[in-house]
Amino acid sequence: MVSNKKVLFQKIPTAYPVIGEHIAVEHSEFNLDAPLLSGEFILKTLVLSVDPYMRGRMRDVSIESYAPAFVVGQPIDGYAVAIVEKSNSSVYKVGDYLYGMGDFVNYAKMSEAEAKARGMEVRPDIPTSGLPITNYVGVLGMPGATAYFGLEQVGKPKAGETIYISAASGAVGQLVGQLAKTQGLRVVGSAGSDEKVAHLKNTGFDAAFNYKTEDTDAKLTEYCPDGVDIYFDNVGGVMLETTINHMNNYGRIVACGAISQYNTSFEESYGVRNLVQMVGKRLRFEGYIILDHPDFDGPFRERMAKILLDGKFKYLEDVVDGIENAPEALLDVLHGKNFGKKVVHVADA
Amino acid sequence: MVSNKKVLFQKIPTAYPVIGEHIAVEHSEFNLDAPLLSGEFILKTLVLSVDPYMRGRMRDVSIESYAPAFVVGQPIDGYAVAIVEKSNSSVYKVGDYLYGMGDFVNYAKMSEAEAKARGMEVRPDIPTSGLPITNYVGVLGMPGATAYFGLEQVGKPKAGETIYISAASGAVGQLVGQLAKTQGLRVVGSAGSDEKVAHLKNTGFDAAFNYKTEDTDAKLTEYCPDGVDIYFDNVGGVMLETTINHMNNYGRIVACGAISQYNTSFEESYGVRNLVQMVGKRLRFEGYIILDHPDFDGPFRERMAKILLDGKFKYLEDVVDGIENAPEALLDVLHGKNFGKKVVHVADA
Repeated sequence: MVSNKKVLFQKIPTAYPVIGEHIAVEHSEFNLDAPLLSGEFILKTLVLSVDPYMRGRMRDVSIESYAPAFVVGQPIDGYAVAIVEKSNSSVYKVGDYLYGMGDFVNYAKMSEAEAKARGMEVRPDIPTSGLPITNYVGVLGMPGATAYFGLEQVGKPKAGETIYISAASGAVGQLVGQLAKTQGLRVVGSAGSDEKVAHLKNTGFDAAFNYKTEDTDAKLTEYCPDGVDIYFDNVGGVMLETTINHMNNYGRIVACGAISQYNTSFEESYGVRNLVQMVGKRLRFEGYIILDHPDFDGPFRERMAKILLDGKFKYLEDVVDGIENAPEALLDVLHGKNFGKKVVHVADA
Repeated sequence: MVSNKKVLFQKIPTAYPVIGEHIAVEHSEFNLDAPLLSGEFILKTLVLSVDPYMRGRMRDVSIESYAPAFVVGQPIDGYAVAIVEKSNSSVYKVGDYLYGMGDFVNYAKMSEAEAKARGMEVRPDIPTSGLPITNYVGVLGMPGATAYFGLEQVGKPKAGETIYISAASGAVGQLVGQLAKTQGLRVVGSAGSDEKVAHLKNTGFDAAFNYKTEDTDAKLTEYCPDGVDIYFDNVGGVMLETTINHMNNYGRIVACGAISQYNTSFEESYGVRNLVQMVGKRLRFEGYIILDHPDFDGPFRERMAKILLDGKFKYLEDVVDGIENAPEALLDVLHGKNFGKKVVHVADA
């Protein structure tokens, strides 16, 4: 028997989730030697991704959305890299690295059908690429594809334009900024600490500011003297309203996230008062979810791995050790306390 | 000498403009027999269009926007049909019908250069088509092109989808609804009086309601049981917020106008609180201005004239007589008191 920690969803939160009340770690045991039916195998979790969108999954199961609701009493799940520890399957063999939606547990027994339903794919590139495994749930995973797709397909950047990115040091933002830089844009970002701002400048942002200590409106005036052509919006709320005032005609607002609004009720949500500018400035404000574009994934990963191996990009990860620290890691992301892409390192292969 | 009434812009309003304070009628005289320099001609105004966008022109000239600011002390201008009364020009001949941006005056002396700057074009189709001249500043003019372009190019409708149109009996809305009907959409509209609602049903809307006496949220639930795929937004504000709650995944919000927000300060503007749904529902919210698409105009007019001559469309006009009533007509449009496209009939040819 081995120790098997699980992160359980316990109760639907109405504001920020609280550890112990809404999510909690359960200690249990797992029998690695239990017999496996044909097609079954045992997965050992290596890394887990914690991301803002997970807040949206903490809802009543009756409410439909792009990502399924977490089930009360069950482990939460998310993007994961795991290794096959034991196997009675000809598809998933011992030593195979898998990427897909994994439960927040140390060990899990799985059937081939369940693995398929979770989008688990065998990924021989993970142990051979020379890139850290944590990259595969971040810059090479969902957040990376979200950044690349959002900038390219929704933002439609043109050299010489100005892009402004909020939550710019996060999993998506830091990559958007560096990609935009390679395409000849003026890149401006904001983040919630001076340390994050310094990191942004260090990755090549033309300008960056701490939105908690500086006035966003004044800083946008100063740093975007020609206005904003693309606003890559990760936060929504008052930041969105302020930025709309700086948008140029034909500007694009890439609706990637709205983290400032994820933990408030509708009544308490910030009301954006200047949408009248959508018409006069001919703005396009467009939301997208990377899950809708699975065909994008393969080509994206190939291009991104090449970029990373070139060594020119600086993708900052904020790695915590131990699955028992996953709830706090998730809370950190929701509160903006992460410094770079937050990843939970659960175990080595 | 003939009487020449002019509608002057007198002062920049901060809320709804007031007749006598912000716009006023001036009585003057015009000498039809004054000598004309080479290239000069005299225009007699026949019909004038009053439209919501004109409120946006009542601003400080230093503020740039898609349509130039009105100049204090000068006549306001707008879409007009006029006839050449006298001429010393080989381009604009006596009896020619002109369409373009005309001053709100009975008579005006004009040079060829000024006529060109105002986009004045000789339009032989106007007196020969068999369609009312008022149509040329409405269903065949800017509002018509706005409706057609917005539905087709921005909304991208698909048969079987549901479209909801606010200010649906207005110059743009009533046409959007009828066009959408021909493309196999379920068409739902709202307007501000029972009389307008009855008219919408009479033009083939599947359902319509009076937003002043009915609850929009309840009515959208009832009339759009499969949700809203396209929201053709003419009003903005709380109507926009309520409709976002009913939007389907991949829905489009055509930002055509925001009349509920034109006469309020930024501070008093309605704050839309549910933009977080832009991401989860992958909505596209897009503004446009028909002036950006001059190439659309010719082909549009040809198609639209054919549709109108077929006699199947019901395009309601709210015609007032006399240029002295133009200020009130404009106020009516801003207050939603018009019943159909508001047009000022100034004179017969």
